[in-house]
Amino acid sequence: MWGGRFSEGPDAIMEEINASIDFDKKLYSQDITGSKAHVAMLAHQGIVSNDDAKAITDGLDKIQDEIEHGEFTFSRALEDIHMNVESRLADLLGPSAGRLHTARSRNDQVATDFRLWVRDTMDTLDLQLAELQMVFVEKAAEHAGVVMPGFTHLQSAQPVTFGHHMLAYVEMLGRDRGRVRDARKRMNESPLGCAALAGTSFPIDRHMTAEALGFDRPTANSLDGVSDRDFALEALSAASICAMHLSRFAEELVIWSSAQFRFVKLSDKFSTGSSIMPQKRNPDAAELVRAKVGRIIGALNALLIVMKGLPLTYSKDMQEDKEQAFDALQNLSLCIAAMTGMVKDLEPNKKELKKAAGSGYSTATDLADWLVRNLDMPFRNAHHVTGSLVAMASERNIELHRLTLEDMQSVEPTITEDVFTVLSVDKSVRSRVSYGGTAPQNVRKQAKRWLKVLEKDLAAKQ
Amino acid sequence: MWGGRFSEGPDAIMEEINASIDFDKKLYSQDITGSKAHVAMLAHQGIVSNDDAKAITDGLDKIQDEIEHGEFTFSRALEDIHMNVESRLADLLGPSAGRLHTARSRNDQVATDFRLWVRDTMDTLDLQLAELQMVFVEKAAEHAGVVMPGFTHLQSAQPVTFGHHMLAYVEMLGRDRGRVRDARKRMNESPLGCAALAGTSFPIDRHMTAEALGFDRPTANSLDGVSDRDFALEALSAASICAMHLSRFAEELVIWSSAQFRFVKLSDKFSTGSSIMPQKRNPDAAELVRAKVGRIIGALNALLIVMKGLPLTYSKDMQEDKEQAFDALQNLSLCIAAMTGMVKDLEPNKKELKKAAGSGYSTATDLADWLVRNLDMPFRNAHHVTGSLVAMASERNIELHRLTLEDMQSVEPTITEDVFTVLSVDKSVRSRVSYGGTAPQNVRKQAKRWLKVLEKDLAAKQ
Amino acid sequence: MWGGRFSEGPDAIMEEINASIDFDKKLYSQDITGSKAHVAMLAHQGIVSNDDAKAITDGLDKIQDEIEHGEFTFSRALEDIHMNVESRLADLLGPSAGRLHTARSRNDQVATDFRLWVRDTMDTLDLQLAELQMVFVEKAAEHAGVVMPGFTHLQSAQPVTFGHHMLAYVEMLGRDRGRVRDARKRMNESPLGCAALAGTSFPIDRHMTAEALGFDRPTANSLDGVSDRDFALEALSAASICAMHLSRFAEELVIWSSAQFRFVKLSDKFSTGSSIMPQKRNPDAAELVRAKVGRIIGALNALLIVMKGLPLTYSKDMQEDKEQAFDALQNLSLCIAAMTGMVKDLEPNKKELKKAAGSGYSTATDLADWLVRNLDMPFRNAHHVTGSLVAMASERNIELHRLTLEDMQSVEPTITEDVFTVLSVDKSVRSRVSYGGTAPQNVRKQAKRWLKVLEKDLAAKQ
Amino acid sequence: MWGGRFSEGPDAIMEEINASIDFDKKLYSQDITGSKAHVAMLAHQGIVSNDDAKAITDGLDKIQDEIEHGEFTFSRALEDIHMNVESRLADLLGPSAGRLHTARSRNDQVATDFRLWVRDTMDTLDLQLAELQMVFVEKAAEHAGVVMPGFTHLQSAQPVTFGHHMLAYVEMLGRDRGRVRDARKRMNESPLGCAALAGTSFPIDRHMTAEALGFDRPTANSLDGVSDRDFALEALSAASICAMHLSRFAEELVIWSSAQFRFVKLSDKFSTGSSIMPQKRNPDAAELVRAKVGRIIGALNALLIVMKGLPLTYSKDMQEDKEQAFDALQNLSLCIAAMTGMVKDLEPNKKELKKAAGSGYSTATDLADWLVRNLDMPFRNAHHVTGSLVAMASERNIELHRLTLEDMQSVEPTITEDVFTVLSVDKSVRSRVSYGGTAPQNVRKQAKRWLKVLEKDLAAKQ
Repeated sequence: MWGGRFSEGPDAIMEEINASIDFDKKLYSQDITGSKAHVAMLAHQGIVSNDDAKAITDGLDKIQDEIEHGEFTFSRALEDIHMNVESRLADLLGPSAGRLHTARSRNDQVATDFRLWVRDTMDTLDLQLAELQMVFVEKAAEHAGVVMPGFTHLQSAQPVTFGHHMLAYVEMLGRDRGRVRDARKRMNESPLGCAALAGTSFPIDRHMTAEALGFDRPTANSLDGVSDRDFALEALSAASICAMHLSRFAEELVIWSSAQFRFVKLSDKFSTGSSIMPQKRNPDAAELVRAKVGRIIGALNALLIVMKGLPLTYSKDMQEDKEQAFDALQNLSLCIAAMTGMVKDLEPNKKELKKAAGSGYSTATDLADWLVRNLDMPFRNAHHVTGSLVAMASERNIELHRLTLEDMQSVEPTITEDVFTVLSVDKSVRSRVSYGGTAPQNVRKQAKRWLKVLEKDLAAKQ
Repeated sequence: MWGGRFSEGPDAIMEEINASIDFDKKLYSQDITGSKAHVAMLAHQGIVSNDDAKAITDGLDKIQDEIEHGEFTFSRALEDIHMNVESRLADLLGPSAGRLHTARSRNDQVATDFRLWVRDTMDTLDLQLAELQMVFVEKAAEHAGVVMPGFTHLQSAQPVTFGHHMLAYVEMLGRDRGRVRDARKRMNESPLGCAALAGTSFPIDRHMTAEALGFDRPTANSLDGVSDRDFALEALSAASICAMHLSRFAEELVIWSSAQFRFVKLSDKFSTGSSIMPQKRNPDAAELVRAKVGRIIGALNALLIVMKGLPLTYSKDMQEDKEQAFDALQNLSLCIAAMTGMVKDLEPNKKELKKAAGSGYSTATDLADWLVRNLDMPFRNAHHVTGSLVAMASERNIELHRLTLEDMQSVEPTITEDVFTVLSVDKSVRSRVSYGGTAPQNVRKQAKRWLKVLEKDLAAKQ
Repeated sequence: MWGGRFSEGPDAIMEEINASIDFDKKLYSQDITGSKAHVAMLAHQGIVSNDDAKAITDGLDKIQDEIEHGEFTFSRALEDIHMNVESRLADLLGPSAGRLHTARSRNDQVATDFRLWVRDTMDTLDLQLAELQMVFVEKAAEHAGVVMPGFTHLQSAQPVTFGHHMLAYVEMLGRDRGRVRDARKRMNESPLGCAALAGTSFPIDRHMTAEALGFDRPTANSLDGVSDRDFALEALSAASICAMHLSRFAEELVIWSSAQFRFVKLSDKFSTGSSIMPQKRNPDAAELVRAKVGRIIGALNALLIVMKGLPLTYSKDMQEDKEQAFDALQNLSLCIAAMTGMVKDLEPNKKELKKAAGSGYSTATDLADWLVRNLDMPFRNAHHVTGSLVAMASERNIELHRLTLEDMQSVEPTITEDVFTVLSVDKSVRSRVSYGGTAPQNVRKQAKRWLKVLEKDLAAKQ
Repeated sequence: MWGGRFSEGPDAIMEEINASIDFDKKLYSQDITGSKAHVAMLAHQGIVSNDDAKAITDGLDKIQDEIEHGEFTFSRALEDIHMNVESRLADLLGPSAGRLHTARSRNDQVATDFRLWVRDTMDTLDLQLAELQMVFVEKAAEHAGVVMPGFTHLQSAQPVTFGHHMLAYVEMLGRDRGRVRDARKRMNESPLGCAALAGTSFPIDRHMTAEALGFDRPTANSLDGVSDRDFALEALSAASICAMHLSRFAEELVIWSSAQFRFVKLSDKFSTGSSIMPQKRNPDAAELVRAKVGRIIGALNALLIVMKGLPLTYSKDMQEDKEQAFDALQNLSLCIAAMTGMVKDLEPNKKELKKAAGSGYSTATDLADWLVRNLDMPFRNAHHVTGSLVAMASERNIELHRLTLEDMQSVEPTITEDVFTVLSVDKSVRSRVSYGGTAPQNVRKQAKRWLKVLEKDLAAKQ
């Protein structure tokens, strides 16, 4: 805190607000890689000599080594990672180090470094999401036939299968991966060579540096190249939606772990106990995953606000981009890792799930559908008849299948014995064979489909 | 406002908070289209008779007609568009109307209706964005060689061309369109037939309804199908980034229209005058475009918050999705339309732009680059020499090209007469021929490339 | 949507984006009241004649009457409520109507109108919140001794009383009311007479209009007076925190109403049933209250974004303030009304609550405290001993008080018979008499204290 | 990033997501102070012996000393600051250290620590804001008579004074301080002694610890005491509005520093130059202040999202509160410090300001007012006449006071020579003597009033 009228001089305040090295040093590797690609291109184009390029490249390698061995002293007076590296290079090489910055500027340099970081993070997230899908799919395959209540409004509505519930998250994560990959693809253009904002008069080859850095192509407009932070915003958008998905399952884990639900047992590894109440298994990791959607949405919001109404091209406002993206994407990565661990170890409590699935007249819809199918009743009428039967059972405090045929016929005389074949929860879930429905055979088929996809995806990542 | 202890009974309060018809009636057309596809499929599968299907279809057509002619009375007691339509259908057909709701539920019905609306909105936005790109491209082609100052930190940095500045927005809008189309593609799956949450035991054909409604396929998991609002969230994410882009140009228009800048003249149509100060041309439309990014980000934020931590499957919370999406996407559409009108009529003030481009030693970088290129100086040294020369000119309050060769040589003896060839703004912009650079020839080439793309895109939309 | 290249002319687009009458007509009453105060002051100061003032006042009364009887035609061409009213006044009075606008501007006029609306809304919300506190207090007094589980991490931790839980919300709402009243007090300054931005040369008396409109004083700086929207932002901040509180109880209602918890019975009036499953009682109103925090935070966020970086003074951006505030504050009002109804009718299921309170070794802390108090053990050691005893009970699948004294002494030999006096849930809650603790006697005392405060507050509002 | 299927074990992931020591160690001083107050009370109430209390207090002092001298090893395995301190205390004292935790829990402990931090931060911010007000007031007093254009829509509207503009921010900051102090007052209640959630059976005296820690009173409800994070949210709300105010002046500084405006000269200390363009003075600090409103709103948003829908009482989600509050409030503190430095050194360019103030027919309103006052014209008619005169001047490209009396009379025959007395900018600003108006005498009076208030406020803080 900066209170107290004369407590700190303006120089300290300016350094504190202006210097970015405390957080952008994370980009050292991207910065050095970018510089090496740049100088190789400068040499190839005859803009610097091969000897200078070699010396600069060796110097950069040495600096990378120093940083990775903790032998590098970062200086706030040098403001950012770019000047820290360049200044060290000058120490090592003398004036010829200054040739590295030919035909570029910090504006395109930082845009390149940060974009490389976000792009590579997209790849990591895609891999992690595939792994999380995999553990959900494995859980689904294992419990394809385990019956549980399907909820609307947290009220038991119809029986479904545990495997089907797991696969719902596989679908969500599949869309998340689609967004991550679309974002990755869209952002994969190189700003290097946009220079300060206008391009350069040196005969550079931007396609060469783009290729060296794994970009699909250079950005097509230099003003846009240094002003654009869409890549971070799109990554944060995808991250926000993904974190929201995780928060939904986290909420379910918290509720399902309560003494009242007892639907699942969470792994000890992701719970905390209490030394005084050893039976207690607080779902801390699930709660933290649920909560972290807050900071991820907050980061998206923050960066959108930063960019609102900024005239072209680079403004210092844009320095606020990195901490938000670093924090949000790393926290998402951590959430996915934690969720993967939790799902992997998750044990459904089959007995409780089955009991809960069968209570609350959860097969009433099956009864109504039977009436439509067998008695050719319009659905709305069948709805009405079913309502009366449930009311009768409810008054007697029994489940539907405990009503007698006579009871049934007292409401609707044409009902036959056959009706009882649809009133069990197992019958109910087995009957839901419509595409996407909860029947165990559907779950197995979908799990198999996903397994094939994911094995391929994960193999490609090795 | 609901103040006053006994002012309103609980029934009025519940109706007010619960009924959605005031806003979801906007979906009447999607609702009826969806129902027609559903009943055609039911008939095809033998679940309802052809006669019933015919009667229901005719009834639905009649209802659509009534709504479009203002002859339909929406009822809040019937809560939502689905029950309003179904209830009217029952008036028209009697009990057989009740067959329409076989094998579906309001949960999949509303998911289908809303998704259709968002999907079609994506198409409209893509078209509008292409049109906006087109007017920017036309402006760029027209003013490819018009010189203006390129800004960083709102300080003049290097000269660029007006056309190049226009094309920067074409790039941004191109990415916006990419996001809109990726979102459209990802959301184009049909939830119809997921029923309440578990699928159905009726032998429905979800692929048939999907195809009839223009979806690429049915959703693969029924729990996900009724719980998912990613399509709205992804649309709002894309809209937020797009609105942010518009806010940047809107800000530039406001600043450029000020008496101090006078860079452009805004169209009368999108300005408001003042009866007392007729010279005043308030950039109201630009300010509103700048401001509306607030509500669009607000809507994205709101819906993410709504979805945070919701257990599967449908919860009433999700009813809060529509107003946010309607408001945000319609406002974005309006902003694009207004911006298209503004850009179309925009007149750059070439004289002011040129004057501003030439002041402030904006070609200092060109001088430094000349030193590197011609004297083989390391860039950082060239930087230093240039700094001394600018300081000299600044002290004398003259521009760089007014220094004499002797002046120059007093700082760096090896400078030659040739240096003066790079000190004019026209020379400067013409030299920036690196890929993506601001040189007029680059601008013309990029404009031509975009023109071809956009003509094709717009033709495809006719 | 505004798609299609030539679909709409610029005039239609400009009217759509620029006109505010569709939403600011809600301010007609504030606008007319403000104008009447203004013209009365103008007459008092001799700036307009008494006859003109009388005619204008009568005209304004007539217009108010027309609006309230639905006989007024609002015109979008006239843009906003101010011009709609003034134009009608000119119809009625001719040119002398034009004297009303002496020494003011739309800038101070709209600031005054909107501030009046927000201020009066603060009063309504304060009243509503007091009513909601009252129903919580009544519930607390009624159920001061009803035992329920106190949760951390949604895991049963220690027994508490239902009344104590109700009072926790009374405290939260008390802080909400504090924020609402602080905001109300801070905003209660009159911008009227700031004119366009600079004040005026007419000898107006701003204190007179301020007093007439119930303001505490005029704003002290005219530039600030027309640029300030803090009053709306502070109202939205208070509303967001309040809505968050409501979302917490709404979540509890949803969870408590589940078949697995069955802690409470919600009123039919605020639930929706299902014609097919009559036992189902969906907590729709609670879910909507939980969800609406999204749009309220979204509105706060939106308006903060609108105001970010706006140069002084009025910019058209600020027209985006009203819809956000109207929507958010009215929805909060509705949420409070719905919550009041829900709490009023809420019935705790005492049997289930007691049963849940007693399970899960919830009195383990009482045992540890007994060890500290009676055996002078350091708390951390007592913690450890208790852990061993709970583990023993847990292995045998019995509750703590079912262990024998011998069992106890096998772990800690000095334990005496007296320990059993602290192991019942009733004993546990009765012992928590520390200030703010859950003991029934505390709850009764706090409820009584609040009752007195609220009766006074509500009486003052009559 | 946590990618790679088997890259990290669950233990590492759980530690990473669960441990808070990396950020909550910032609370060491509050934690130790709280513990000392707690143990003193325990001794006073006879719950622990005086000897134990003395030993614990000495141990805590030693630990504080170790931390402040960098001799303390923080351990992630011990999770948080509370366990790190308590564990070290056990090293020092043995089992009797365990008596400290009697009658409290980490739940009330962390609530107390964090609340103390936020409360003290409110005091610092209030002081800093008073200092910033002071430099604005000093600037206002110094430049009370300096004329500048008053803008609406960034279009010059009427002349105002530079001092008046400065005072507008003093008003805004005054409201900010009001919010900060209201929040401080509301939060100043002690949660210590709420224990885990239910209070305690030990005869503690919560009023004693409250007083020792400078709280006004203990919180009245133990469930609320451990569940409440309003204090952080209200602090973040006030911070967001304050940061928005700063962003407005920051935007003005950026625009005013442009070559096109040249209204002010920013201090070198808060600008960055360019070694190549020495005349360039990039307003980096102003841009960063403008941008940082993003992260502050983002933090408010994040914490509101975290708290949404959390059942009582403590959930681990709430651990996400601290990083947001730390980051946002420290950044606000830094922004205020930077802004204070910038304003202090700010030099208005009087010549440019005056020139800009006089152009653009900025005294047209004065002319209209003259017509009303002297010719008894209704304002709307005067408006119309003025419009015609401005149009005439505009056509001839001259300012209003260059029109001849004949010119004037050709539009309105009864205009007299006296009209020219109101057409100068100095005359205009001097005439705006209405309360809150821009006249230099008003500015001086307001500045004097504020000076007195601020001197008192700042003296009280010494």
